[in-house]
Amino acid sequence: MKDGDFTLTESVAILLYLTHKCKVPDFWYPQDLQARACVDEYLAWQHTTLRRSCLRALWHKVMFPVFLREQVSPKLLATTLAELDELLQLFEDKFLQNKAFLVGSHISLADLVAITELMHPVGAGCQVFEGRPKLAAWRQRVEAAVGEDLFWEAHEVIMKAKDFPPADPTIKQKIMPGMLAMIR
Amino acid sequence: MKDGDFTLTESVAILLYLTHKCKVPDFWYPQDLQARACVDEYLAWQHTTLRRSCLRALWHKVMFPVFLREQVSPKLLATTLAELDELLQLFEDKFLQNKAFLVGSHISLADLVAITELMHPVGAGCQVFEGRPKLAAWRQRVEAAVGEDLFWEAHEVIMKAKDFPPADPTIKQKIMPGMLAMIR
Repeated sequence: MKDGDFTLTESVAILLYLTHKCKVPDFWYPQDLQARACVDEYLAWQHTTLRRSCLRALWHKVMFPVFLREQVSPKLLATTLAELDELLQLFEDKFLQNKAFLVGSHISLADLVAITELMHPVGAGCQVFEGRPKLAAWRQRVEAAVGEDLFWEAHEVIMKAKDFPPADPTIKQKIMPGMLAMIR
Repeated sequence: MKDGDFTLTESVAILLYLTHKCKVPDFWYPQDLQARACVDEYLAWQHTTLRRSCLRALWHKVMFPVFLREQVSPKLLATTLAELDELLQLFEDKFLQNKAFLVGSHISLADLVAITELMHPVGAGCQVFEGRPKLAAWRQRVEAAVGEDLFWEAHEVIMKAKDFPPADPTIKQKIMPGMLAMIR
């Protein structure tokens, strides 16, 4: 993100910066100490767990085989999808529980970050919400809270992931070295 | 962390909670929007990079071979240490640059989180600061800022990592399933 001559990376840091700068309604990042701590807890937890797993699902299911034309072994793909399944269960049990949103009755940054990650495997054709009524109802509530149009506009690119045409060789060469570690 | 009947996980969330609750001096987590954003940027960045790498170095170099008596292939250990080396360079170039601390002239939560992770490979016997005068000078400044006694008290257990006696079989059985993915 560039704001004048200030450059900031990391989506979580950018969301927090915009939250403070734009003086958004309190529920996005509550002043209440414990509620805020629960948002921070989710934002910290997801980096090495659900975020990583959603990204791997997208890359192993679509980006490598379709976009980069690089084979992913069925065993690796199965492991990735099983890991995602476990983390979705943990997400429901530990974070969502029986609440409307991750930190109680209002949407917060935690829900925004979570839905953005979960839409990655959805874009790859994974059945993330099927057979998970609690998770599907939460997704509906997030969509209603941000508004249907904005929700789908935000996910427009990722929802087309499985229809991306194969990458041209120069793009492939550019992104391959950093990504190859994910399938080896 | 338990504070009365409030339970919180995730070290980053706990630090932020204590920062707000205990009304600590501003420099730990500055009110200034851009300085705060830089702390948040580091805290977000480190989860999947330096934190992961420092933990892997500790486990591959000491915890598996010494504590759990499980072989780690020399190739995997070499990859882990090379990755750590690259991330230390990135830490210096992107975050520390020529500043006294990660976010300017004062210590902040970013430095606390960073030093805690870097002491993991140090405890495993890795040469983290040798040959890196800029990083070594920063470590000295962090030690001076928190106080020498507190600094070493905080790292007392991790500094003994390479002298841990082998785990007894029940402990080994308990922690192995979750950790084995790190060496396979």
